[in-house]
Amino acid sequence: SINPDLASERQTASFSVEKLTALLDGGAERTRIRRAVVEAIECDPIFSRENQYFQSQNERYEAAVRKGVHLQKKMHEMGWTQDGPEFKYIYRALSGDVAFLLHSIFIRSISVLGSDKQIAKWVPLATKYRLIGSYAQTELGHGTYLQGLETTAVFDISTQEFILNTPKISAMKWWPGDMGRSATHTVVFAQLYVQGKCYGVHPFIVQIRSLQDHSLCPGITAGDIGPKMNFEHIDNGYLMLQNVRVPRENMLNKFCEVQPDGTYVRQGSQKINYFTMTTVRISLIGDEVLIPLLKACTIAIRYSVVRRQSKLKPGEEEAKILDYQTQQEKLLPQLATGYAFHFINNYLQGLLERGYTEIKSKNFDTLPELHAFSSGFKALVTQYSTSAVEICLRACGGHGYSLLSGLPSLYTKILASCIYEGENTILFLQTARFLIKCFMAASAGQPVPPSVTYLAALKPGKCPAKNKLDFLSPDTYTAAYQHAAARLVSSTAAKLQDLIQSGVKRHDAWNQCTVQLAQAAKAHCHYLTVKNFAETVEKLETQAGIQKIMKHLCDLFALHGIFSNAGVFLHDGYISGAQMDMVTASYLNLLAVIRKDAVPLVDAFDFTDKSLNSALGSYDGQVYQRLYEWAQKSPTNKQMSPAYERYLKPLLHNKLSKL
Amino acid sequence: SINPDLASERQTASFSVEKLTALLDGGAERTRIRRAVVEAIECDPIFSRENQYFQSQNERYEAAVRKGVHLQKKMHEMGWTQDGPEFKYIYRALSGDVAFLLHSIFIRSISVLGSDKQIAKWVPLATKYRLIGSYAQTELGHGTYLQGLETTAVFDISTQEFILNTPKISAMKWWPGDMGRSATHTVVFAQLYVQGKCYGVHPFIVQIRSLQDHSLCPGITAGDIGPKMNFEHIDNGYLMLQNVRVPRENMLNKFCEVQPDGTYVRQGSQKINYFTMTTVRISLIGDEVLIPLLKACTIAIRYSVVRRQSKLKPGEEEAKILDYQTQQEKLLPQLATGYAFHFINNYLQGLLERGYTEIKSKNFDTLPELHAFSSGFKALVTQYSTSAVEICLRACGGHGYSLLSGLPSLYTKILASCIYEGENTILFLQTARFLIKCFMAASAGQPVPPSVTYLAALKPGKCPAKNKLDFLSPDTYTAAYQHAAARLVSSTAAKLQDLIQSGVKRHDAWNQCTVQLAQAAKAHCHYLTVKNFAETVEKLETQAGIQKIMKHLCDLFALHGIFSNAGVFLHDGYISGAQMDMVTASYLNLLAVIRKDAVPLVDAFDFTDKSLNSALGSYDGQVYQRLYEWAQKSPTNKQMSPAYERYLKPLLHNKLSKL
Repeated sequence: SINPDLASERQTASFSVEKLTALLDGGAERTRIRRAVVEAIECDPIFSRENQYFQSQNERYEAAVRKGVHLQKKMHEMGWTQDGPEFKYIYRALSGDVAFLLHSIFIRSISVLGSDKQIAKWVPLATKYRLIGSYAQTELGHGTYLQGLETTAVFDISTQEFILNTPKISAMKWWPGDMGRSATHTVVFAQLYVQGKCYGVHPFIVQIRSLQDHSLCPGITAGDIGPKMNFEHIDNGYLMLQNVRVPRENMLNKFCEVQPDGTYVRQGSQKINYFTMTTVRISLIGDEVLIPLLKACTIAIRYSVVRRQSKLKPGEEEAKILDYQTQQEKLLPQLATGYAFHFINNYLQGLLERGYTEIKSKNFDTLPELHAFSSGFKALVTQYSTSAVEICLRACGGHGYSLLSGLPSLYTKILASCIYEGENTILFLQTARFLIKCFMAASAGQPVPPSVTYLAALKPGKCPAKNKLDFLSPDTYTAAYQHAAARLVSSTAAKLQDLIQSGVKRHDAWNQCTVQLAQAAKAHCHYLTVKNFAETVEKLETQAGIQKIMKHLCDLFALHGIFSNAGVFLHDGYISGAQMDMVTASYLNLLAVIRKDAVPLVDAFDFTDKSLNSALGSYDGQVYQRLYEWAQKSPTNKQMSPAYERYLKPLLHNKLSKL
Repeated sequence: SINPDLASERQTASFSVEKLTALLDGGAERTRIRRAVVEAIECDPIFSRENQYFQSQNERYEAAVRKGVHLQKKMHEMGWTQDGPEFKYIYRALSGDVAFLLHSIFIRSISVLGSDKQIAKWVPLATKYRLIGSYAQTELGHGTYLQGLETTAVFDISTQEFILNTPKISAMKWWPGDMGRSATHTVVFAQLYVQGKCYGVHPFIVQIRSLQDHSLCPGITAGDIGPKMNFEHIDNGYLMLQNVRVPRENMLNKFCEVQPDGTYVRQGSQKINYFTMTTVRISLIGDEVLIPLLKACTIAIRYSVVRRQSKLKPGEEEAKILDYQTQQEKLLPQLATGYAFHFINNYLQGLLERGYTEIKSKNFDTLPELHAFSSGFKALVTQYSTSAVEICLRACGGHGYSLLSGLPSLYTKILASCIYEGENTILFLQTARFLIKCFMAASAGQPVPPSVTYLAALKPGKCPAKNKLDFLSPDTYTAAYQHAAARLVSSTAAKLQDLIQSGVKRHDAWNQCTVQLAQAAKAHCHYLTVKNFAETVEKLETQAGIQKIMKHLCDLFALHGIFSNAGVFLHDGYISGAQMDMVTASYLNLLAVIRKDAVPLVDAFDFTDKSLNSALGSYDGQVYQRLYEWAQKSPTNKQMSPAYERYLKPLLHNKLSKL
């Protein structure tokens, strides 16, 4: 039965939850397909995540491998294919709890970096799982700075082989997924040496384990890197190479080749490599970041209308904690952020598709902008989402801290997204480099991409808002964000130039500006997120109820950003102190408005109980009962601990001396 | 051997590390005693934490119990007593990884709430471990709001017993430490009913497990609440009571008693209860928050001078990541925060001691201020420290995410401190209530405690700073903090009054101001932290080298706070945009100055490698070697996973159909 405190929240929705779900999915038909995939996965006990919170790293790994293998059968059984409409929902339905994710990166890297011959040889083997692939780039000593990788591949002209080595401990490959215990092959990135000359980092296919008995191949040392904050199901591995020989044909050679006589030949454009990185960064936003964020919002908001604590008015019954302004102010901006990021993700997907079309016709003009976009948004979205999930966790108090709430694992998972596929600060600085370049160009009257033309249009001005309602106008707040971003970019560009003109070397000057450059890049991405949200809302005119609540969320997202980064807007007086009070008033008023629809707004994300895997967040709101029942399943309750006989009993019976 | 990149950092210290350590300890003699305790604990293999990151919850619990029992022997052996100078260092030396912490709360609650007769009966039994105690206050449905507890204790006049029940699932005790598997007794907080009348929450001693064989007593259901983000070594438990009878004498009755005929008598002042809560909140700052924060700084800063990545200047070797401004801006403010909180902790300890002296002479006048202080600072320190540890973790990239870095467990531990002993938002609001009361009183010309007299002295003014060096004056920035805090308190008080005067009910009005009230309370505590740091630095005049670097840290802490909360200072023009640029310039300059002493500043915390338990943070800086060696010990590397034979082999050998 549904907890009445949750049921009542659903009776007053100002919009159709089902229609909003369809909107989020991109149409009712997609909702139908998604639900069918989820249903098929969840009704299969092999994919169950029921005991996940009680399992050791070893058990999690075994379960993930079992699921990975079973998924092949399942897909066959269900008629799902890699190109079918169902495919994109499988990962969501599994909550990512499956092995062989790097196997597909292995395949993709061969498809992108390999010659037709190499693709013809390796991809079918991998697709049929006659081997298990991995992707060995990161080393103990190098992550971000790929040029610094220390693994070497020396061409031996006499045998037509490359000899691979990790010559020192920091050169050891470290972190690659699926490599610690599963993979038989991996793509190793190594410094290529031919006749004593270094040609930089190149990819090599290396077999690391026997296809017969899975024993390590000669010269290979490999294993698991041990416990992490999350991803216990993945065997992130290490790999040492000692004079490991691979044939000349194993260097992926679509773009560069070592010919039999040792001649090094470059061919074609490597720009497509950028595009791969861009694709990964954008696609992880949807799969790895957005979904945990929306789940955390669902759990925390449902819990907050079921949890009653203390009284708002003396004499009344205890209040739902979501009725406290402070709780609303914790959770509702995160909910608005979830929607904002859903829409910016759609926008980025669109950009990516258009970019891909252009690249296919050999037009690489939009690549720099796309690269800057993907870097900055990867950083912005992962950082804000991580912070949002942490807020959701803490907003659930002690019960949020229990693994059974589901929130700790969502948090530790999303936290990783700030680190992998480019550390966020480095990524913001890449975006900043693009912005500074465009700012300089625009200031010199040269053409720049449309998304950054605003940079050159900065005028000292004032926000025209006269009362708090004016701040509910998207034009008003979008202009404020635009102004703030442009100011941060231009003032940092000025600082940079001043430093250089005063004799500071260019690289030192850049370093001395990086804190502010990162801030500027963040402001730029934040601005675009607000702008995109506002434009999305505008287009919802045919769905009045949904448009209205989305407008509230857009306003909340925008005003929350101004409220919590007030300094950026007040700095040059664009927004005055009195106007900031209006922002605050409008912002706090919106909380009370959106609070009424909070539960329908998370219901629309349409997560099943199994996918939430949370004692706090289930659709029926039977929180306490579920916490109690789930705790019974903990291994800590399976038997009396041996600690009693060994330590407690002698202590209590005063027989300690006999220990 | 020491990594040369770390060794070189120690050769240029601008001050004596040993003298700073002594200053932090409160004198060289205390340093000596602390080191002796740490040495004695760390050389004893029973207390080893070597395998901690690989252990299951069951293993962690067993180890903690073993350590708890062994500690009794160790103390006896070493001649350490509860009152001796060594005692306070034991917990630090154990890194809190020991059982029976709630046992001492059990003892303390009887000492504070029990009559002399009850103390005489129970405390010796507990001290000799003839029983193991716990403290059962929190329920599934109630944490913060104690008046809402649902457990009942009904007085049965015919048998002179109390009958205890948890009448519904939400009434179940949930979270008490040591209760899931260890405790034989607990203090249960329950609503007292005598002859149908409810007298509110009272404490009762209840036996829950047999002293003979540890089986649960009749009417008792108890167990472990399952996995959590941390504290795997503690058996946080649940407890259901079904008609459990305890004699009348088991109600702790120093302040209230039920007489044999059912007459309820109140006696003495209960104000001391407030003092207990205050004591716990202040003492946890030192034990549970400061130490993890300082450890995280140590690990992240040492790693950041050993890790080299990318180049600052083309052609040079790769740079230490601490040489990047962005890395400095992540870590050095956290280091400054660590020092700021060390000194505010000293200050709070002093307050507490003076308060205790006054209370012993029956003077309760300072209690409200002390309570407001302890609430606000508990919230401020735990919140900022949690955020600081997260920054340290993320600043170490992928390796920070490995449990072997030690950072994840520091983070998950410190995160809990935001939730337990009063949820932080509630605590800030308690401080805010005190501030508003004082502000009203001061505005009406009534006397208020010295710490809040500044609230009434708010004048519209401007910061007098004329250049960036002016912002290195403690008077300048302390005045800015004071102004900002006073403005936030007075403007929120005004909003509150406006709302009430416009007809909003007092409780609704309060709720509508809570976001701003919490902000005001935070600003007040932040101001006092800056002020106390500045005053502490001033008193270091006899130690020139140390005073100089502490002054830099104080400046950094203060300017970081202004830089990152710029809106608060810009809002009414107290600091202008141009001045904020000076703040930023001074702030960023300080980073480069303090960076030179960063390693000596963390060395001064004097954590042993064993206490850090971090592959990244060891004194010798042999990071990569240690990561590799520690990973070898992981259970994931102990044997070939059964997943190979079961799933991988059939997959690779194309025998899936036989599965």
